[in-house]
Amino acid sequence: MNPAAAPRSTPGTPGDALVVGVDYGTLSGRAVVVRVRDGQILGSAVHAYPHAVMERELTAGPAAEAGSPLALPPDWALQVPGDYVEVLKVAVPEALRQAQAEHGARAEQVVGIATDFTACTMVPTTEDGTPLSELPGLGDRPHAYVKLWKHHAAQPHADLVNAVAHERGEPWIARYGGLISSEWEFAKGLQLLQEDPELYDRMRHWVEAADWIVWQLSGTYVRNACTAGYKGILQEGSYPSRDFLAALDPAFAGFVDDKLAHPVGPLGARAGSLTAQAAAWTGLPEGIAVAVGNVDAHVTAPAANAVEPGQMVAIMGTSTCHVMNGDAVREVPGMCGVVDGGIVEGLWGYEAGQSGVGDIFGWFVDHGVPAGYHEQAAARGISTHELLTELAADQQVGQHGLVALDWHSGNRSVLVDHELSGLVLGQTLATRAEDVYRALLEATAFGTRVIVEAFDASGVPVTELIVAGGLLKNRLLMQIYADVTRLPLSTIATDQGPALGSAIHAAVAAGAYPDVRAAAAAMGKVDRAVYTPDEGRARLYDRLFAEYRLLHDHFGRGGNDVMHRLRAYRREALAAGPAPRPTREPAAVGTEAP
Amino acid sequence: MNPAAAPRSTPGTPGDALVVGVDYGTLSGRAVVVRVRDGQILGSAVHAYPHAVMERELTAGPAAEAGSPLALPPDWALQVPGDYVEVLKVAVPEALRQAQAEHGARAEQVVGIATDFTACTMVPTTEDGTPLSELPGLGDRPHAYVKLWKHHAAQPHADLVNAVAHERGEPWIARYGGLISSEWEFAKGLQLLQEDPELYDRMRHWVEAADWIVWQLSGTYVRNACTAGYKGILQEGSYPSRDFLAALDPAFAGFVDDKLAHPVGPLGARAGSLTAQAAAWTGLPEGIAVAVGNVDAHVTAPAANAVEPGQMVAIMGTSTCHVMNGDAVREVPGMCGVVDGGIVEGLWGYEAGQSGVGDIFGWFVDHGVPAGYHEQAAARGISTHELLTELAADQQVGQHGLVALDWHSGNRSVLVDHELSGLVLGQTLATRAEDVYRALLEATAFGTRVIVEAFDASGVPVTELIVAGGLLKNRLLMQIYADVTRLPLSTIATDQGPALGSAIHAAVAAGAYPDVRAAAAAMGKVDRAVYTPDEGRARLYDRLFAEYRLLHDHFGRGGNDVMHRLRAYRREALAAGPAPRPTREPAAVGTEAP
Repeated sequence: MNPAAAPRSTPGTPGDALVVGVDYGTLSGRAVVVRVRDGQILGSAVHAYPHAVMERELTAGPAAEAGSPLALPPDWALQVPGDYVEVLKVAVPEALRQAQAEHGARAEQVVGIATDFTACTMVPTTEDGTPLSELPGLGDRPHAYVKLWKHHAAQPHADLVNAVAHERGEPWIARYGGLISSEWEFAKGLQLLQEDPELYDRMRHWVEAADWIVWQLSGTYVRNACTAGYKGILQEGSYPSRDFLAALDPAFAGFVDDKLAHPVGPLGARAGSLTAQAAAWTGLPEGIAVAVGNVDAHVTAPAANAVEPGQMVAIMGTSTCHVMNGDAVREVPGMCGVVDGGIVEGLWGYEAGQSGVGDIFGWFVDHGVPAGYHEQAAARGISTHELLTELAADQQVGQHGLVALDWHSGNRSVLVDHELSGLVLGQTLATRAEDVYRALLEATAFGTRVIVEAFDASGVPVTELIVAGGLLKNRLLMQIYADVTRLPLSTIATDQGPALGSAIHAAVAAGAYPDVRAAAAAMGKVDRAVYTPDEGRARLYDRLFAEYRLLHDHFGRGGNDVMHRLRAYRREALAAGPAPRPTREPAAVGTEAP
Repeated sequence: MNPAAAPRSTPGTPGDALVVGVDYGTLSGRAVVVRVRDGQILGSAVHAYPHAVMERELTAGPAAEAGSPLALPPDWALQVPGDYVEVLKVAVPEALRQAQAEHGARAEQVVGIATDFTACTMVPTTEDGTPLSELPGLGDRPHAYVKLWKHHAAQPHADLVNAVAHERGEPWIARYGGLISSEWEFAKGLQLLQEDPELYDRMRHWVEAADWIVWQLSGTYVRNACTAGYKGILQEGSYPSRDFLAALDPAFAGFVDDKLAHPVGPLGARAGSLTAQAAAWTGLPEGIAVAVGNVDAHVTAPAANAVEPGQMVAIMGTSTCHVMNGDAVREVPGMCGVVDGGIVEGLWGYEAGQSGVGDIFGWFVDHGVPAGYHEQAAARGISTHELLTELAADQQVGQHGLVALDWHSGNRSVLVDHELSGLVLGQTLATRAEDVYRALLEATAFGTRVIVEAFDASGVPVTELIVAGGLLKNRLLMQIYADVTRLPLSTIATDQGPALGSAIHAAVAAGAYPDVRAAAAAMGKVDRAVYTPDEGRARLYDRLFAEYRLLHDHFGRGGNDVMHRLRAYRREALAAGPAPRPTREPAAVGTEAP
């Protein structure tokens, strides 16, 4: 008898047991069915959220259904909670079907399910977890919906949080590099209070979507240690004080006590058991383990088997998120946060980030590259990115004569300043698109080196870079990162990183492994040291990095605040409306000569 | 009887007398036939130089004729003197034919001819003015040919001239903003000596092409006051001393005495009379006045009737040349030169310049604008420049959030540093091509304001900008210049500026007017104050100019010498040859997971 052909169902043990991981991204959710023994992915499926991201108008609710959707102000980004449940109903069964068709897997073999989510993505709910947007009469209230991570309209509220925190000398602010983001729980909550106080009053829980989906699966609300720490300012058991909250707004004094505080579960723990309803949605056995929620970036670390101190995981896509474990707590300037058990239980989880990476390359290809390159790429059946990369790869380090600052989306680490902007220096009439492209690739590598050096200097040494995310397929980019940082560079060996990471947590929650580190060792996928630094190029890059650093500190640390001023001038100009056209008809024309 | 139909020939008087102006540009020569009375252009014709500019190989001479042209080193730019004579033989008769066909003009009405030339463009000749390249056995010697203004291979020689001049405290260096250009007579002459000493010995005269063509027309060698002063370091009757020259190279001690010094004629003076041979070439009457030579930029001032102190003429094309008269000599930091009678006799002629203007706009359109813009422009039957200008014109001042430095071709005034390079600061993912385009237009306006302010601060106040050259047709650009400089902006009212300027000099040389100022008043063409500054926009531009100035001084005056270092790194990288392709095959690939 062939055991692969007829796998045994052995709940709670590695054997042929299976787990399901579900990764909730910005536009879709992805489910994978994974073998507990070795992390092999047997089936996967994706389901796009029907409402995607609501940024310009509210496309859900009665007004939208009547054909007159409400307009949303700038910088808003909302989602519909029901879309997340649809992923459970569609993608999980589909992944199971695929695993069955291709590997003979059966639903009964599944011993646990876990999820990861974008963060900080917040759902306002009633006592029983019903989203306010689903209550009668609230479907046209924008604040009743999910505020997606990239909802940036709470910036003034974040500014207030930061100003008051520094004014009062709050100790927790240092754990976040000195700055609480507009994306996080407090800023978004304060916006809700101040812009729709009645709705705020009706809200009982302000829930991370990462926990809300676990609540839907298990019927139990458990706050996960990751978002509670990184996004919810929970440090060593304490939240910001009532006094602090009252200083923000007297009506906000009870925010923690009334809306936020709730039991916290460690990552990899069992939040509860799959309810009958969720079993019906998913086709999974009722009663299997449901793991505590997690965050897409952080869950990628075990997926890449990179959970030891010194292993910095860079999830490189439109932006880059860096997560790394350390065995002690240190305050790294400009980090996004450090949380006890924030990545794996028993270690301090550090997070940092680069707010613009792949989106800068994409913007440049869309808006700065002449037609000839696109045509040549199309003729060769490759992307313009690939063509530019190929042309750039032929260059020696420094040949383009350029240096760039990668702040087109601001700077998240280490300057923590969203008002910064991009710069390209060194252009001549001989500068071509591939030159600028390479300079932008390098600028993001320099940005990573700044972060690595900040960690090193703060006593949290980085010894290896492990790259996950879509950009790892650009080999030139990877080599540049290795050369610029002088670190060996490993790459995750699956394109289902977060979903696999969730599956690992499901296996731990189901008791198949003693902890996430053990599960990661068995189930994680990584190609080790695929790129190693070349000392010759590294030395040349040291010179260019010195230039980057000079410009970084000059424009980023107050040497010249031109970027802030230009932003202010731009806002003023936009507020003034479109320009009149004074130049089309000259003021006066007269030929003076006889 | 209709006097227009049957004009009288009245040599020496305005009446219906005609003059011919010939403008020698970089790639072609243009002849115009002009009515002395009012500057009306009756005919014009262009003839392209058969050898154009020889930059990569020597396409003249026996080797080229045998099919194996000699390669030229980088930064060389040579021409063939016979090409200039061809313009006399082709374009002048053609312009006469057109004037006759369209206006009944006759060659006998022509009372004088004058020419203007690119400068500093140098011809090595024998005693009688025969170019060395025409001597038997010398046709394959690159140094025997004309060194065009943009021959930049004498940079090391210019560096030496400047170093020694400052070391010795030579007083004349201040008249050139502290820097002698590699384009000028001394640097090019020193290169000839040091790289082909035998040829240097055979050379009797080192002649400006501006004077060589006059020599061909009149049989007389007269050095014109303009190039002798601006390019030949002749200041108040004196050249650099023998001691200075010997300090450059002992063999160069006699350069002035043996090769350069020669009687100088004031602008507008009669150099001689048209020879029988030149009359045969051109179809003009033998014996008519031939004016002293001139330079294309400087001759444009009278063409725009802008010869009074305070009237700064900007000839705006790929680069911009600024010329202006002052009634006293002042040392303006970073100016290109100040010469007594350098533009018109009796005033001090100042020159400044921006080394990159239209070429930056052109480079951006060619290499930084996506296909959609070109397609939209083509569909509308306008140029991409026009489309970008239209889109940029809809913006308020400051709306794009950008500031740029216009140093893609270095900086000629006031920093006098060819190793500087371009910069664009403030990009976000929302930045579009029209934003950068407008920022580049503005950067060149800021560059002009820096020059205007340097003149103002040195006691040579600028009260009006008069624009000539191809860029004057961009109305947005013109309005930006008016707003940025807070100066009324006039535009030349002919597209034959330099050729008309030459014609004005021909009229003076022929005695039709007492001097160039009187002739310019009668014959010059200008639309006065076509653009006037808008105070609201001017105030907004003051803020952006302050940002430009900060960056200008930081990167241009040693605050951060990154541009110089990047140039050096680029040179090193280019010298190292093409990059190996280390990134195509990773150093090691192994899947660590089981």
